[in-house]
Amino acid sequence: MWKYNIWIVGASGAVGVEMMLCLKNLNISMGELRLGGSSRSAGNIISTPFGDITIQEVWDDFFTWLDYALFSAGWDISKQYADIAVRSGAVVIDNSSAFRYDENVPLVIPQINGDAIWDAKIIANPNCTTAIAAVVLYPIYKQYWLQKILMSTYQATSGAGAPWMQELLSNTQKYFNWEEPVVEQFAHNISFNVIPHIDAFQENGYTKEEMKVTWETHKIFQDDSISISCTAVRIPTLRAHSESIILETKTPVDIDHIREILKNTSGVELVDDPTNNMYPMPLNATGKYDVEVGRIRKNHVFGDRGVELFVSGDQLLRWAALNAVEILQECINNK
Amino acid sequence: MWKYNIWIVGASGAVGVEMMLCLKNLNISMGELRLGGSSRSAGNIISTPFGDITIQEVWDDFFTWLDYALFSAGWDISKQYADIAVRSGAVVIDNSSAFRYDENVPLVIPQINGDAIWDAKIIANPNCTTAIAAVVLYPIYKQYWLQKILMSTYQATSGAGAPWMQELLSNTQKYFNWEEPVVEQFAHNISFNVIPHIDAFQENGYTKEEMKVTWETHKIFQDDSISISCTAVRIPTLRAHSESIILETKTPVDIDHIREILKNTSGVELVDDPTNNMYPMPLNATGKYDVEVGRIRKNHVFGDRGVELFVSGDQLLRWAALNAVEILQECINNK
Repeated sequence: MWKYNIWIVGASGAVGVEMMLCLKNLNISMGELRLGGSSRSAGNIISTPFGDITIQEVWDDFFTWLDYALFSAGWDISKQYADIAVRSGAVVIDNSSAFRYDENVPLVIPQINGDAIWDAKIIANPNCTTAIAAVVLYPIYKQYWLQKILMSTYQATSGAGAPWMQELLSNTQKYFNWEEPVVEQFAHNISFNVIPHIDAFQENGYTKEEMKVTWETHKIFQDDSISISCTAVRIPTLRAHSESIILETKTPVDIDHIREILKNTSGVELVDDPTNNMYPMPLNATGKYDVEVGRIRKNHVFGDRGVELFVSGDQLLRWAALNAVEILQECINNK
Repeated sequence: MWKYNIWIVGASGAVGVEMMLCLKNLNISMGELRLGGSSRSAGNIISTPFGDITIQEVWDDFFTWLDYALFSAGWDISKQYADIAVRSGAVVIDNSSAFRYDENVPLVIPQINGDAIWDAKIIANPNCTTAIAAVVLYPIYKQYWLQKILMSTYQATSGAGAPWMQELLSNTQKYFNWEEPVVEQFAHNISFNVIPHIDAFQENGYTKEEMKVTWETHKIFQDDSISISCTAVRIPTLRAHSESIILETKTPVDIDHIREILKNTSGVELVDDPTNNMYPMPLNATGKYDVEVGRIRKNHVFGDRGVELFVSGDQLLRWAALNAVEILQECINNK
């Protein structure tokens, strides 16, 4: 059995750590695992499921004897090193937004559009907000088609990175100690607050995070005709994003049928028993590979073609980590 | 100048306390202020802007020499005593949902439908989730009409009452002390969580809180033709609800014109300067009489008739307390 040399770039980040666990849990046939990081983290030894590994600084000659490079170190590093990794003979799976909108780069959720990988040398992993919804919406789309997707999000602080999550925790502790909050990461104090602002504002009044849901869903579903709109909101939770989603389908919906479809969708867990207080919640979705979906009901605003639902998914674990490793697995299977 | 004898029923609750401040701030011409409460709170002395007052237990003979009774003690107490207060000669302004859907009882936001009061003896105060949106949406409705209102809420724990807010605080403290959460008020632990469940589930899959937005907006706007849908979500904040709202109007919208209208709407504060990180947030809306509105933008999902916006409003102060006292003021002005 062939063993694959895999480099993780951004190994000390929250996503990098989850990626190693996913590599183990999916039984990827590992050769060498090399971990890359910034000059600041280089030299640190990380305990991984494959033994203790020292983080090395990423530079041009880092990518030798490499089969797959998993990039999770932000836009700049991906732009700087992905092409170098490819020239060294590797396939790059990139978690940043650096290549997502490049028409030559497939944007992939394996259970939706694994075919799009073909023989691509760079494959992009979608934004977590898009991906959490897409895995739930795609089977509904296949059955009933979608004309409109209207989304409002409830996003955890860890979506912005570990320091952002830390700021929620430290400012919440300061609240109990009657101390003034210290705001360094977010635009405002997020503790016991709501901030309707994630990523940069665009000319059209939407943020980039909100527009990504449109751009990326169109690309993954290969259908630009769906009208999509999002309001992306940061709330004081630690992990797992939630989304309130309203759909208008093209053909009349049967809610029980949608429940049945989602019950049998891989990557999705149906949590929809409101009378027993069962519905998606971030505290339950945290640490799960599956996205929770519930509160599924008919929305009469769109006549017999309206659906409303609520999802919660662990954006760190499921997206970005697991999806990147599932892309890697798909690449191996395609060989 | 006539002085009015006013009884507050539910004086020891969070809303009751805010009501007294509103009575003072609106310069209501006060005669006697009497405070009613449960047998448990009877005998307690409350410091009010009108001096120290002892809470009395509410019973049949409580309502003597009364002009106005402000009820804020829940559905049961309103059902039990509102008619008795009316028979004693009073006008009742009721914060509960006991009479909101009674066709003989006007449901009033004075700046929208103050005329509906006429000579009513019982006047209902709307649900806060409805009211925060209504005060912002009504001027848009008057200009462009509304075909669809699609809402997802971000509701503070205090909306459920002081013990619910206390449960958020105590379970958050427990988190920092590595203690297990104790869940008594909410269906689940709300600390660092999201609960898409407020009030009881209905047959149609919506909660009563969600349906109230439809029922009450129809009644206040006197227009059943608007299609309305809501997902009501509890989040770990203390005070002030937020709402992400998508509108489809009947006629094409001009976003700058909508901003201009809202800038000049009483009870509304336009907070819409995203490039300077200015948008509605609960921490800023707390303690304000005005509802904050911002993130106003064109929503292309509804062609040239789509609008998206975000609101935050202090549901305790503005609704229920201030709106009840503004109804009282309107009654006095009508005399």
